[in-house]
This record gives sequence, structure tokens and C-alpha cells, in this order.
Amino acid sequence: MSKYDIIVLGSGPGGYVTAIRASQLGFKTAIVEKENLGGVCLNWGCIPTKALLKSAQVFEYLKHAGDYGLSVKEYDKDFNAVVQRSRSVADGMSKGVQFLMKKNKIDVIEGYGKLKPGKKVDVDGTEYSADNIIIATGARSRELPNLPQDGKKVIGYRQAMTLTEQPKKMIVVGSGAIGIEFAYFYNSMGTKVTIVEYLPNIVPVEDEDVSKQLERSFKKSGVNIMTSAEVTTVDTSGEGVKATVKTSKGEEVLEADIILSAVGIKTNIENIGLEDVGIVVDRDKILVNDYYQTNIPGYYAIGDVTPGPALAHVASAEGILCVEKLANMHVEPLDYGNIPGCTYCTPEIASVGLTEKQAREKGIDIKVGKFPFSASGKASAGGNKDGFVKVIFDAKYGEWLGCHMIGAGVTDMIAEAVLGRKLETTGHDVLKAIHPHPTMSEAVMEAVAAAYDEVIHI
Amino acid sequence: MSKYDIIVLGSGPGGYVTAIRASQLGFKTAIVEKENLGGVCLNWGCIPTKALLKSAQVFEYLKHAGDYGLSVKEYDKDFNAVVQRSRSVADGMSKGVQFLMKKNKIDVIEGYGKLKPGKKVDVDGTEYSADNIIIATGARSRELPNLPQDGKKVIGYRQAMTLTEQPKKMIVVGSGAIGIEFAYFYNSMGTKVTIVEYLPNIVPVEDEDVSKQLERSFKKSGVNIMTSAEVTTVDTSGEGVKATVKTSKGEEVLEADIILSAVGIKTNIENIGLEDVGIVVDRDKILVNDYYQTNIPGYYAIGDVTPGPALAHVASAEGILCVEKLANMHVEPLDYGNIPGCTYCTPEIASVGLTEKQAREKGIDIKVGKFPFSASGKASAGGNKDGFVKVIFDAKYGEWLGCHMIGAGVTDMIAEAVLGRKLETTGHDVLKAIHPHPTMSEAVMEAVAAAYDEVIHI
Repeated sequence: MSKYDIIVLGSGPGGYVTAIRASQLGFKTAIVEKENLGGVCLNWGCIPTKALLKSAQVFEYLKHAGDYGLSVKEYDKDFNAVVQRSRSVADGMSKGVQFLMKKNKIDVIEGYGKLKPGKKVDVDGTEYSADNIIIATGARSRELPNLPQDGKKVIGYRQAMTLTEQPKKMIVVGSGAIGIEFAYFYNSMGTKVTIVEYLPNIVPVEDEDVSKQLERSFKKSGVNIMTSAEVTTVDTSGEGVKATVKTSKGEEVLEADIILSAVGIKTNIENIGLEDVGIVVDRDKILVNDYYQTNIPGYYAIGDVTPGPALAHVASAEGILCVEKLANMHVEPLDYGNIPGCTYCTPEIASVGLTEKQAREKGIDIKVGKFPFSASGKASAGGNKDGFVKVIFDAKYGEWLGCHMIGAGVTDMIAEAVLGRKLETTGHDVLKAIHPHPTMSEAVMEAVAAAYDEVIHI
Repeated sequence: MSKYDIIVLGSGPGGYVTAIRASQLGFKTAIVEKENLGGVCLNWGCIPTKALLKSAQVFEYLKHAGDYGLSVKEYDKDFNAVVQRSRSVADGMSKGVQFLMKKNKIDVIEGYGKLKPGKKVDVDGTEYSADNIIIATGARSRELPNLPQDGKKVIGYRQAMTLTEQPKKMIVVGSGAIGIEFAYFYNSMGTKVTIVEYLPNIVPVEDEDVSKQLERSFKKSGVNIMTSAEVTTVDTSGEGVKATVKTSKGEEVLEADIILSAVGIKTNIENIGLEDVGIVVDRDKILVNDYYQTNIPGYYAIGDVTPGPALAHVASAEGILCVEKLANMHVEPLDYGNIPGCTYCTPEIASVGLTEKQAREKGIDIKVGKFPFSASGKASAGGNKDGFVKVIFDAKYGEWLGCHMIGAGVTDMIAEAVLGRKLETTGHDVLKAIHPHPTMSEAVMEAVAAAYDEVIHI
């Protein structure tokens, strides 16, 4: 029986990053994967969707070439080629992880891993043991009882990125990052898209101003949006699919070729041996301490299977922290109040920290500043005037409580806010950190200036 | 005679921002402008060039639509429409400044301002006086003795952005930001471009690795590059223009339609009354103290006319600092070691702090980390694998000495490094600030990890 220092169960962005860091720290490490290295993120999530979205963005440039002094006579998209490009990007990344495993001398054990008591893992009949086992099995698309996925007419994100035929009409149920990104992609490709969101705002975890701006942008580009709306029944008996949608105005029947269910995730914790080992689970999540130890010594869990935001970068950070702690490094628990979130539609969304509403609900006296990209020179030059940066500061202590951005390139701009907040910056420091001109990033500085009544360009 | 608290001479990004901040602080403020509000930056620099470059980037997408699963049968650029778009963006911004002047109750005095002793300014015969006069007259294209600009065949940046006919062949002399941006733009539009750079590397102020990467990218896209090369004589007598270029290999005669001279700037300090007032000038710059006071009480100077980098964001920051000091606010002198610089070609360039060579020349023991975008998932998905992030840390004290980026979107990413450096971050803090996945900004985190042998994805 092979013996390791660490066995990682699952090779998503939680698992494979954990394995690499473990190996760097001198642990003899193995990783168990039942399907493709890289997990959902690389193969069916973050990466291939960004490839699809890039095609959509370029397609928008073709449609609007005239705005830039250019002309296009005839243009088209090849839906299958767009999907194919996305697949080949994902394949490339998965091969990259393969290379990284080899380079870091990590044993890749292919097969279905199941935890056993005594710090063992059974992979399709073969047993492996380790001093520490890290569960990183991730999650999958959640199914609503009244919206069962048949993988054909009612699908999850996984099918949504490999359809062989582009639907003419699509209903997207749920408007978190996944729903919004597919809604943007398909609408841009020419599918008639309706978003059905249960809550009063789309992208409901974002600041309300962001939700409203996105709603305006999406409506302008032809997406139909129904909020405070619920799919009550689905009829797949005919050629397409009929969804009954309940709103405050009553019930309405929508017809489409396909319904994409994007209503969150369900963790992959069934049939991996948690019960055999006695690991405690609560509300679909494995309970862990600050260093990702479960209740059973030697068993750890990171990423989507644990409480906290189900995001690739969180999983990676948790895994790194977990193995650094195992290596007796001095580590501090993750600050879950400083985790950025991104949505890669156009305009992009990025945010970190408290929304204005959350801050007010906590009773904090706040200063709020907002700078619209319509007042930015770079945004004008780039044709990217939609959106804004909004910042929230504690009025008394100057703490940077939240930063909310919607606009071109903001997913690459939020890092400034994350680092600034980590370093306990004040608004004054952000103001006096010279942002290059002309950039979209100046809007961060100007939003902070607006919070302190020093804004220049509005 | 009208009396002001502050008169600002020149309405570029130094002058108009100064005037706004002055007015916010309660000063009765006037601004003198001989031409267009917004100065070179808005009218003939930063903003209109970014508009041209955006058209070039979209044109590249048309050329390479097939890479994204899209097809374009016939496409073209309308050179005049591209220029027209750029002009209309500039006009819009200039009108924006007009609005800001009005909103902030700043008197705009149109005409040519000349300083007079006794804190007075003469504008075309009318005298105005102020307690404080701030000189912000900026700079213009520098002319080399052997490359005199006739505005037709040998031109500066100003003509280069409003040519009525696209040249077939162009020689760009100088490869700083201005030369490089026009070289990229014209090459992309289909002009055959040759860059002639006196120093051994293009973008010579950047880290050598950045220069080399840009050279590779530019050569791949068909730009001819001559380094350690000098234009010795120019012959404009024929139909086009002939330039004799001297290199280590000897002399060569290049033919072109147009030569763009982009060899730096010359300050606008002639005929503005400096001598009458007795203001000291040294090597083409007005000498000032940490708070931008000249040697004559009541006269201040900011922006390109003073020593330090001739950049819009520096001019704005200097002006704000100058008037905040006049308002008796607690201000700290500008940290000229933490000024970012950007070049907006493709791939973009952004940097701050010391280059590797500068750090080594100072004898500092350094840690260097580099992360190539070829290893980034977001870069793969976006088709932006060219480039890298390079970071330099002091090995002993952990100070972040420099950050050098080349790649898509990096001009919006450098703010993180500027703020981090301002807050005296360590590499560890950057590593533990969670960068969202998948973004280009992860490359900053990974480059820092590489410096400390903790990199995950290479």
C-alpha cells in the first residue's frame, strides 16, 4: 500500500493548487481525480466560460465596428467553432495541470476516491494511506425540485458550454455569476434570452447600484429580465420547453428551446466515505476549523465543500493555508471579509467587502463615493462609458469597507482594493497613490475622492 | 483689475486639475488658456491617442476574427473616420473641462498669458493679479537639430494624430511612449513602420525584459526596428522623405512618406515672462521646492515645466499638492520614486519603481520574480498570452522595489503595485491578498510568489 504525507481528493483549483504547495513544502503528495485534472474550474467553469465570453466580446466589436471608424461587410459566428475554441483552451489548461503535477512530483491517481477510516483512501479498489487527507471534491450545479435537469432541455452550466446547436430562445433561471455570464454570451450570439431571478435584483449579492446598472445595460442589449420571479412548473413534452413563471403580476408561460438552471451549487459530498470516517457535515457543507481540519484528526477539507464562498480563488487560498499550517509555518486564518468576486459579462462586475446596504444594516456611519466611467477620459476613448466605481468607508475610522465596480476591465482592477484593504489603507492613501492617466483605474481614486468631497472630474 | 487668490497659467491636466482643487479649497481662481481647455493631454495627447489605439485594437480583432470562432468576409478601415472619432472624443473631453470650470466657478481667461512682476498676469493686454500664480504651461514636441519638423514630411505627435491621408511608409524616430503608440497604431492600420531608436533598446526607460518582449511582439506584427541607430540627415526635396540612419553597421538610407519625430519634449517656458519676474530656470525646467514654489514668492510651477517625469498624472498630483499646501493643509511631498508609467500599445506596458538593472546598479541585494501570461488561464481564454509581470524586492528588508508589466490590460493593473508600495507592503501581503480567479491580476500574485520560490502555476 502506497503511503503519502498528503493525499488530496479532487484536482480542481482547490485540490491541484494544494498539492503543488504541499509538494513545494516537502510533503510526499498524491492527488486523486475521477475525471479531468483541473476540475470544474478549468474544464467546465472559470476558464472555458471566459473563452466563450471573449468570442462574444469580439463578436460585439464586429457588430459595432462602425463606431470605431471601421467597416465590416459580412460577418458571422460559427457557434461550433466558438465552442470548440473554448474546449481547446480548457484542454490546454488541463494539460498544463498535468505538467505541473509531473514537475512537482505529485502522483496523480486516476479514479474515484473514497475515504476510509485510519487515514486511507480507496481508489477503485486500491488503498492508499497518508498522514493527512485533504478533501477537495468541489460542487456541481444545484437542481431545484420544480426544475429537474434532463441535460437536454433543462440544463446546467456544463451542458450550456457545449451545446451542439445554438438555441433560438433560452430561459436562464438564476442571475448569479454563472447565469449572468451565459445570458450575456447567448444574447450576444443572437439567442433571445430571458433571465428569471427569484430575488428583486439581478446579481443579488452585489451592491444594488451595480445590479441596477447591469439591468440597464442588459436591457439595452435586448435581454429580457424578470425579477422577483419564480419558475413554478416546466413542461418539456412539446418540441421546446414551456416554463410557468410566477411574478407579483400573476403567472406567465414562457416558451424556449432550452432552460439553463443556474441557481447555485450542490457540494460533492455523497458517496465519498464521509459517513464511514465520521466526518461531520452541516447544511451540505463539511465543517472545518480555521485551518480546515474536520472533526476527525488527519482529515481536512477545503474549497466548495466547506462553508464560505464557493469560488476558485478561495479554494486555492484555503488549500495553501491548510498545507502551510501542516508544515508548521506561521499562518493567519483567511479573512473571509476580504474576498473579491467577479462576473465577466460586459460590463464586467467586481466587488469586495460590504455593500452599502450591508454597511447601513450594520449601523455603521459611512461615507460613500461613486465615480461614473462616463466622466473618465480613458473610458470615453475606449468606448466604455457604462458603469462606475463605488467605494464605502467607515466615516469615523476611515476603514475601506467595500468597493463595487461595474465596467470594462474592472475584474483586473479589484486587486487594488483587496490589497489596500488587507494593508488597512485609508482613503487618503488611495487618493495620494498616483494612478496613471489615462486609465480606468483612476476611477478608484476619484471614487475615493468623491467619498471625501475632493473629486475632480465630476 | 480683476484680483484672484490663484491664477493658473495653462489648462492642461496640471492646470485645470489645480484650478478645480483650488476652487474646492475656497480660493477664488482663474485659469488662463491660449488654445483649448485641457491642453495637450486632452486635445493632442493622452486622450485622442487612446481613441486611435482603440480603433487599432478593434481592427486587429477584425483581422483575427477567425481565432475566436468568428468570420469576417470583407472589412476595412476608414482612416479619416478613425481620426474623426479621435477628434470627437477629444472635443467631448475639452467640453467636459469647460463644464468643470463653470461648475467650480473658475474664471476662464482666454488668451496668451504672460507673467509680470508683482504677482500679475498680462493676458493679451489685460492685467490680472493674484496672491498666487501657478505656472502650468506644459511642453511640446522637442526638435532635434538634424531633424527639423516642417509639419508635413517631418512631423510631431500633433500632426501624427490628424493626418488627412494615411502614409504608406513611416519612420518613427524615438521609441518612448509616444513613438511606440504611433508605431503600433500606424502599423496596425497598414502603414509600413520603421522605428529608429538611439539607445540599445526600445522603450528604453523600461526594464530590459519588457523592452525585449515588446521588440519580439512588434517584430512579429511586422514593425521594423533599428536600435543603437541615429538619423543623421534628412532629405525632404523629393516626393517623400529620405533619412540617413547611422548604426554600428554603417549608414543606410530609408525612404518613407513621413517621419514622426518623437524624441521627447521641450518645455513651454519662452515668452511667458519668466525673465521679467526673475524666475530661475535650469536645463529647460523651472526650479521649484517640494511644494512647487519658484525662487520668487507668490509664483509656483507644476507639471512638465518643472523637473521630474513629464506625465499628466504627475502634473495633476503636483498641482493638487501645491494648492493644498497653500490652503495650509498637512501635505507630504510627492514620492517621485512611486510614479507609474504606461504605454498603450498592444501588448500594453506599465511599470513603477526600479528596473532590475537600476536595483543592481544601486548594489541592492534583490529577489526577482517573473510570471508569464502564457501560464495564466485568463490570458489563454482571452487570447492574450504575450507578456509577463516582473517584480523586484529588496532581499533583506522585503521592500517592493519595482513592478514591470507587459500584456493585455496591465495599464489598469499597475495601480495595485503603486498603492501596495505606498503602503509599504511586503511580498507576503501581496501573496496573501486574494486575487480573483481567473484574472490577469493573478499574475502579480504569482510573480511575487516566484520571487519567494512559492509560485504555483509555473
